Amino acid sequence: MPQTGLKGVLSPVVTPVDEEMKPDVGRWIAHCRWLLSQNCGLAVFGTNSEANSFSLDERLGLLDAGIESGLDPSRMMPGTGACAIPDAVTMTRRAVEHGCAGILMLPPFYYKGVSDDGLFAFFERVIQEVGDDRLRVYLYHIPQVSQVPISLDLIERLLAAYPGVVAGIKDSSGDWSNTKAMLERFENFDVFAGSETFLLDTMRGGGAGCISATANINPAAIHDVYANWTSNDAKERQRKISEFREAVSRFPMIPALKAAVSWATGIESWRLVRPPLTPLDADTRKSFVDMLEERGFSMPGIEQPTA
Amino acid sequence: MPQTGLKGVLSPVVTPVDEEMKPDVGRWIAHCRWLLSQNCGLAVFGTNSEANSFSLDERLGLLDAGIESGLDPSRMMPGTGACAIPDAVTMTRRAVEHGCAGILMLPPFYYKGVSDDGLFAFFERVIQEVGDDRLRVYLYHIPQVSQVPISLDLIERLLAAYPGVVAGIKDSSGDWSNTKAMLERFENFDVFAGSETFLLDTMRGGGAGCISATANINPAAIHDVYANWTSNDAKERQRKISEFREAVSRFPMIPALKAAVSWATGIESWRLVRPPLTPLDADTRKSFVDMLEERGFSMPGIEQPTA
Repeated sequence: MPQTGLKGVLSPVVTPVDEEMKPDVGRWIAHCRWLLSQNCGLAVFGTNSEANSFSLDERLGLLDAGIESGLDPSRMMPGTGACAIPDAVTMTRRAVEHGCAGILMLPPFYYKGVSDDGLFAFFERVIQEVGDDRLRVYLYHIPQVSQVPISLDLIERLLAAYPGVVAGIKDSSGDWSNTKAMLERFENFDVFAGSETFLLDTMRGGGAGCISATANINPAAIHDVYANWTSNDAKERQRKISEFREAVSRFPMIPALKAAVSWATGIESWRLVRPPLTPLDADTRKSFVDMLEERGFSMPGIEQPTA
Repeated sequence: MPQTGLKGVLSPVVTPVDEEMKPDVGRWIAHCRWLLSQNCGLAVFGTNSEANSFSLDERLGLLDAGIESGLDPSRMMPGTGACAIPDAVTMTRRAVEHGCAGILMLPPFYYKGVSDDGLFAFFERVIQEVGDDRLRVYLYHIPQVSQVPISLDLIERLLAAYPGVVAGIKDSSGDWSNTKAMLERFENFDVFAGSETFLLDTMRGGGAGCISATANINPAAIHDVYANWTSNDAKERQRKISEFREAVSRFPMIPALKAAVSWATGIESWRLVRPPLTPLDADTRKSFVDMLEERGFSMPGIEQPTA
């Protein structure tokens, strides 16, 4: 049973900054619109969005501006996780008030080795404080970054306590056996692969789609696999997007994604990232762009405000 | 050459919450006052303060209230690190405006495997945006929690770029060879051990003192070692505080510290922690209190508002 309309391919939307390192709201909205035009949903404020490098107020401001500009909330799954419960509540409540179809929640990630009891209490408290029937929570499992895994047992407890509210998960572990276990073990729980590499396998296992960094630049081809996963040539389509993902992954992901958008739009500031990340250096950027051009890669229809 | 008046023993002040999980400002100030009365400085908003489990506004509110109540800013080193530069700037600026002698800054801790270039850019940007000659930055090296180490090379770069501003470090690695290397390699740089276990060694190596979790409950004995580190019986005094630290460390540190304050003050709510941490369960709490009582442990002079 589908939990929300959030199926298929979503992108953790990269967040442009200007030369002063302030969020570039206009370019962010333009990129969101382009992604929607490519059948790609908006998992704004994810890891690849550098979400945690922006203050709560900056994220709230972007979300407000995006909704006000007409971005479709039924296609949005903002990241709302935080180390502090009040921050997670504030961000989640705002997303729900805007009608976002779901939210993607990191576990609190400062303390390591915390118990499932502690994590359960964290998620429970956020759900109860938001206290809104419209809330749909997608858990965000990315242990190599957060260092705080979301165990199968924790999911089971959360699903038992908050059925219908706990709607699914993004599994960015890169561990297919974990994704497979989630697909097999839980009902009424939408599993998204954290990379298009596992998209076909995820769909065949009864999953909901993928939420992938590279969907920022290659959304149409990834959606094509999603839309045709039952077709005879699905495996060949999957091979192509996996191969592209692999080529991009040889570069530091977030700076590379931004360099690609910069290259496609001709907007120099798109390559900027906030510290502690660093933009691609000149040589790496050239290698990356050469790779894109050798493939005849393009991002059709992408454009940015010139203001 | 001392950088600030922040020498000796400081405590990462545990942060009390009420039954609603809101910061208990009155009890926090009372605990700060008791620590000051025991010659213990206030490294508020550290790891053991659950700083990252409180929103920026909650931390600003506590700091404002503490200063307004008369806490001596010359004895304060608030933690101001954050994943997002604007948050670190806001917290640091407020501490400087209040006249806090120094601030203790975590590196941004969401992304792992970031470069020294990226970390340098982060600290540089915070220092420049705060833009105040009174700023004194103590770096916070706690790789087992943050998972983002502060390397000796990074310290060297920061010291070269911001001499006088970059004032020292808290080394919570628990790796004496690292603390020793810092003591030997840098001039005009105050090294604090992250635990009293290394206090005597740190003082003998030319360090500034220690910033230690257990100083929340055992400040007088730890200060005694600091004040008498050149005495003939310094080693025996050190042995006693190390042994107590070891005994406390057999329990989950933050819940145990709060359980100790709860036991000493008779205030039940002091045992509460914010998720994802969990309070000591009844059996563990009993073992812990038994351990304290068997030692005849006390926290003389501690008291709390009854309001």
